Amino acid sequence: MIPAPYLLYLGHSRDFMGIKTSRGLAVFRPDACVGEFRHDDCPLTLDLPRLTIAEGAAAGAKTLVLGIANSGGTFGEGLLDDAAAALEAGMNVAAGLHHRLRDVPQLAALAEAKGLSLFDVRDPPADLVVGTGYARAGKRLLTVGTDCSTGKMYTTLALVRGLHARGIAADFRATGQTGILIAGAGIPVDAVVADFISGAIEMLSPARDDDGWDVIEGQGSLFHPSFAGVSAGVLHGAQAKALVMCHDPVRDHMRGLPGRALPPLADCIALNLQMSRLTSPDVVMTGIALNTSAMDEDAARRLCAETGDAHALPCTDPHRFGVEALLEALP
Amino acid sequence: MIPAPYLLYLGHSRDFMGIKTSRGLAVFRPDACVGEFRHDDCPLTLDLPRLTIAEGAAAGAKTLVLGIANSGGTFGEGLLDDAAAALEAGMNVAAGLHHRLRDVPQLAALAEAKGLSLFDVRDPPADLVVGTGYARAGKRLLTVGTDCSTGKMYTTLALVRGLHARGIAADFRATGQTGILIAGAGIPVDAVVADFISGAIEMLSPARDDDGWDVIEGQGSLFHPSFAGVSAGVLHGAQAKALVMCHDPVRDHMRGLPGRALPPLADCIALNLQMSRLTSPDVVMTGIALNTSAMDEDAARRLCAETGDAHALPCTDPHRFGVEALLEALP
Repeated sequence: MIPAPYLLYLGHSRDFMGIKTSRGLAVFRPDACVGEFRHDDCPLTLDLPRLTIAEGAAAGAKTLVLGIANSGGTFGEGLLDDAAAALEAGMNVAAGLHHRLRDVPQLAALAEAKGLSLFDVRDPPADLVVGTGYARAGKRLLTVGTDCSTGKMYTTLALVRGLHARGIAADFRATGQTGILIAGAGIPVDAVVADFISGAIEMLSPARDDDGWDVIEGQGSLFHPSFAGVSAGVLHGAQAKALVMCHDPVRDHMRGLPGRALPPLADCIALNLQMSRLTSPDVVMTGIALNTSAMDEDAARRLCAETGDAHALPCTDPHRFGVEALLEALP
Repeated sequence: MIPAPYLLYLGHSRDFMGIKTSRGLAVFRPDACVGEFRHDDCPLTLDLPRLTIAEGAAAGAKTLVLGIANSGGTFGEGLLDDAAAALEAGMNVAAGLHHRLRDVPQLAALAEAKGLSLFDVRDPPADLVVGTGYARAGKRLLTVGTDCSTGKMYTTLALVRGLHARGIAADFRATGQTGILIAGAGIPVDAVVADFISGAIEMLSPARDDDGWDVIEGQGSLFHPSFAGVSAGVLHGAQAKALVMCHDPVRDHMRGLPGRALPPLADCIALNLQMSRLTSPDVVMTGIALNTSAMDEDAARRLCAETGDAHALPCTDPHRFGVEALLEALP
């Protein structure tokens, strides 16, 4: 577990998309965030108190979260100095970059000297085993998608909140770097060795014997030529009782692949159900989550209604219209 | 390259399928094998001279090949001691397990002291990139299966030999440890990071502009709950013009998963074609390869005929009856 509360790092970032991990924490773990750290040339804010490293430590921050994405996942200007300053001030440091904090000798030495930890959230656990698909107890919901980046993490978190609001036990099971930092735990499934994809999800979401839900963040799409293997393994490992299909209705090609059309929603629903049945014969598609952020509200409501009718499923935009329609339909 | 000739390790193995790497080398590289090493409790043989480590070294073996496959690729009983003994006797050691020989300090130190090498065949290339699924030139055939260890590698090698016998250019593209040891090259696709599965196959089998075939060794099964993610990514990366379905007709459960039935052959054919079409819309199922080694010849011939009729496809046992029926049906 990554010790909270956090000081969120924006650094010198100028691109709103580039701070999506820090932003996700501010939105979904506001209680765990004491403030934001940014340099004078950073025009962005998460509407949290702007704190220096020393002020963050004084405010009780246990971990500086480097929740930014530089091009190539490398360490940007001044980032290592800022990380060192956080260690000097008594904070742990967490990051989800391709380059690992612990591979920077100065940071590794400083963390050891101070008795603090460096968290590289893209590191999968070392003790993974292959999955089995054997039936395990508990209710699990998995978000799936027509493509990458269609709102699976957001929908997963909104469903957990909605369950909690109803007094139902529910745990968010994170599979990507932003989700892992929000949850404080998880497995970066796209970084595990291929043989262990389903096993990683079985470890992430073990049997549970209360009446609560594990709500698992899906990855990729069965129809994405780059990443469908990950999606297939996640489906089998999740052994989900319920799926929710996440879709971006205005996207004109698969993420990262100009010219590659998105699959028809009906085909994507059918194949996800078919493949899920290998380890969860009674799985159901609970509903559809659309990202309508590019549409006005009337158009968004019409599209949700039309899409729901076309597939005979509840359909909502979790951000705009909530997740009640999905929660009502849970098996 | 791994220095030949080899001493093939059987160890304490009791499962014929568990020694498939040693067996594959004995069958497809007999010239490179001086003998087999097994403990007294190992009831298996490759019909090679049984040699001690010392006798193997005296017979000229340059490398002990730990050609056994445990589920999950871990080190089994006594294996590290035997590997150390081989190094002491002056042999290199090669293995294709997930756990790496070079990560065992005693072996690494011993190899260095002796001036010998440890070969971890499951190390993927460092320069992998994600796949794209964009159309590439060339004819590719991929073997797929109802389960792991159903003869995909054997069938692939037999098809390459058959094509060569007809004067057709063909290259074996190895994706598993045994295939890589036989071919001397390849990518261990089950050991790549999950995001790179399809990309690894695109790298392994690049565009070709002669009229020859790349014959790609498939892995796992879309219906194996442990490994379907690998199989899905391989399908998408292969962009195959032709598939061959490999099946063991006498197996009563999925490999490593007692109680898990094999999929119906028709379902497995249909799902492999459906998923392949994402990157190869005109893919065809060329035929079925059965492993009839547990049956007498009459029964085997009947089963091939019946299976072929049932699915309206050529059906053969590649070892027993050759691959002509499959080659005739190539698109």
